[in-house]
Amino acid sequence: MSIFRANIEAAAGYVPGEQPKEGEAVKLNTNENPYRASEKVYDAIRAQCIRGLSRYPNAVAQPFREAAAELYGVEPDWIMCGNGSDDILTILTRTFVGENEMLRLPYPSYILYKTLAELQGARGEEVYFKDDWTMTDYFGKAPTAMETAPFRAYPLEGVVPESLKLAFLPNPNSPSGTLLTMEEVEQIAATLPCPLVVDEAYADFAGVSCIELVKRNPRVIVTRTMSKSYSLAGLRFGFMIADPSVIEQTLKVKDSYNCDAISIVAATAAIQDQEWLKTTTARIVATRKRLQERMRELGFVVPDSHANFTWNIWPESDFDHKDLYLYLKRHGYLTRYMRYQMWGEGLRISVGTDDDIDACLNLVEKYLGGDRS
Amino acid sequence: MSIFRANIEAAAGYVPGEQPKEGEAVKLNTNENPYRASEKVYDAIRAQCIRGLSRYPNAVAQPFREAAAELYGVEPDWIMCGNGSDDILTILTRTFVGENEMLRLPYPSYILYKTLAELQGARGEEVYFKDDWTMTDYFGKAPTAMETAPFRAYPLEGVVPESLKLAFLPNPNSPSGTLLTMEEVEQIAATLPCPLVVDEAYADFAGVSCIELVKRNPRVIVTRTMSKSYSLAGLRFGFMIADPSVIEQTLKVKDSYNCDAISIVAATAAIQDQEWLKTTTARIVATRKRLQERMRELGFVVPDSHANFTWNIWPESDFDHKDLYLYLKRHGYLTRYMRYQMWGEGLRISVGTDDDIDACLNLVEKYLGGDRS
Repeated sequence: MSIFRANIEAAAGYVPGEQPKEGEAVKLNTNENPYRASEKVYDAIRAQCIRGLSRYPNAVAQPFREAAAELYGVEPDWIMCGNGSDDILTILTRTFVGENEMLRLPYPSYILYKTLAELQGARGEEVYFKDDWTMTDYFGKAPTAMETAPFRAYPLEGVVPESLKLAFLPNPNSPSGTLLTMEEVEQIAATLPCPLVVDEAYADFAGVSCIELVKRNPRVIVTRTMSKSYSLAGLRFGFMIADPSVIEQTLKVKDSYNCDAISIVAATAAIQDQEWLKTTTARIVATRKRLQERMRELGFVVPDSHANFTWNIWPESDFDHKDLYLYLKRHGYLTRYMRYQMWGEGLRISVGTDDDIDACLNLVEKYLGGDRS
Repeated sequence: MSIFRANIEAAAGYVPGEQPKEGEAVKLNTNENPYRASEKVYDAIRAQCIRGLSRYPNAVAQPFREAAAELYGVEPDWIMCGNGSDDILTILTRTFVGENEMLRLPYPSYILYKTLAELQGARGEEVYFKDDWTMTDYFGKAPTAMETAPFRAYPLEGVVPESLKLAFLPNPNSPSGTLLTMEEVEQIAATLPCPLVVDEAYADFAGVSCIELVKRNPRVIVTRTMSKSYSLAGLRFGFMIADPSVIEQTLKVKDSYNCDAISIVAATAAIQDQEWLKTTTARIVATRKRLQERMRELGFVVPDSHANFTWNIWPESDFDHKDLYLYLKRHGYLTRYMRYQMWGEGLRISVGTDDDIDACLNLVEKYLGGDRS
């Protein structure tokens, strides 16, 4: 008999995007920010090096909570910090969903949610987006068989009926970059029998947030990351905004010191530099517009992106997106080829610098012209 | 009906040691290292600041794995890194123990293991140490009622019989500082029906390790932290050494990027500076000896410590350890008062600098002389 839990052995594990060695490729595959974080972040880290790292950090990252609370107009006890928003998503799953209980997630979307269900021994119910990337009218209710993906997370057996305990909704969504309005999200939350986690990893690029909903409905939870808009993917810092009654429980589940002393001072400095955020986000949004328009001119179907990437699908089914991905990779540009079972495939391109995006677009054009070098 | 899992709502949550603001007290309560980490660590952090934090870190902290593998004479795939050894202990619990299954832990010991069982919806079976801090002859077998603590972790109902899935054994143990030999640990591992996690948070102060056992028995797992001997509690970096068949499964459970770019370069620099470790550990061991001897002279019972703290018990039962703790705290010295239900209480004192320990000992002496100021 195996010594491991059956659901762990059965799990495939989440496979993150490729991370080539520095300088080996232009990374347009994992939605990192092409611009260096605010120098105030690095100043804060150097200052912490002088104070040293012998002592345990503040267990709840209080300085960050206070800074974020001020920015978002809540009290600090509405905020919990984590070792990246992945840590937050794991904690939320462990707080709400037991073995054989159910977690609802949209499809196609961030694949990690399904992995979290698997690791918890829970079941993930994947609900299809419509062709226009909405699902407001059925995501919160019990979707019909047509609306749910025909494959589900481990285990199919032993499922507790009517045990929906948590729903994840990334907004903007990945890989589509599409956005539901706050009113649409409110409608979904109202029809759900469980808490709704609105994963706002990309919200700074959308200029729309559901944080106001959290204040109106204690069953809405918003998660955020410093990895994308603040250009701190290497730091691992994320946070959630939720009713204090939720935070009280999730604080029990997190590791005692889940944020290190350096990430606390760095994330605090980052969120206090809103001027940097505004300038950098504006640059990325401008480049996104050019990328999106040019890909459409070249013939791709590209949903309106509200994030720092675009999702590009060739309208005819005989197109081999993977071959284009491999072509770009051979020429030093790493994008993200994604294939969703029973749904289809596409190419996700992160917004890089203008120069990198221009070079990538030129390669796409050459490929479409027949180049296979 | 509550929206939270019942085991989470019922859990008390782990309460870590007090963290006063810098300069407010001499911290002798959470076994931090009083000496600043190797400057090579801080140099590595500053170099990473120049390279920046825009990119995701290496998902498995490969540079650290390679450095640790070289030090311990294993291959890199025998090592998994975590966001502190707390992260590792959480991952191990989630890999091996399902809801209503059982986890065995010694008592009195590190309280977190019980919390991990509670958060998992599992049961923690606490097994008493004998008066001489051994338990080799029964920890691995099914202990009798006399040998197990009469209170157990949530839930008592619905327990799957004979479902022992994991055992935790800190070595050296906390709060006692006592050590089992490698032969004793081997004997325990041989009698257990499940994997044995040897938590070696303090092993560098003992000069004894069970890493050799891991090579002989794939059911032995050793965990380590950089928080204590390497003076990096603020960094959050720990690791485990286990058979690659174990690492393969635990890698699925960890968050994709659980170690940040700074902690990877810092921990790698730290473990590569064995000269610093040797010198610093020798200083701490010398101070520990003085602390231990003086506390015994003052009348306390102090088991031989193999860690960076001592466990001090007054032999007569009318002594109020908490009052001594409060007296020391009033005078600026924070120690750890611990009371274990059905077992007893004591005062754990971390090894600080010689000056701090001398000052603390003087206060203890004054207290014993009747001072209550």
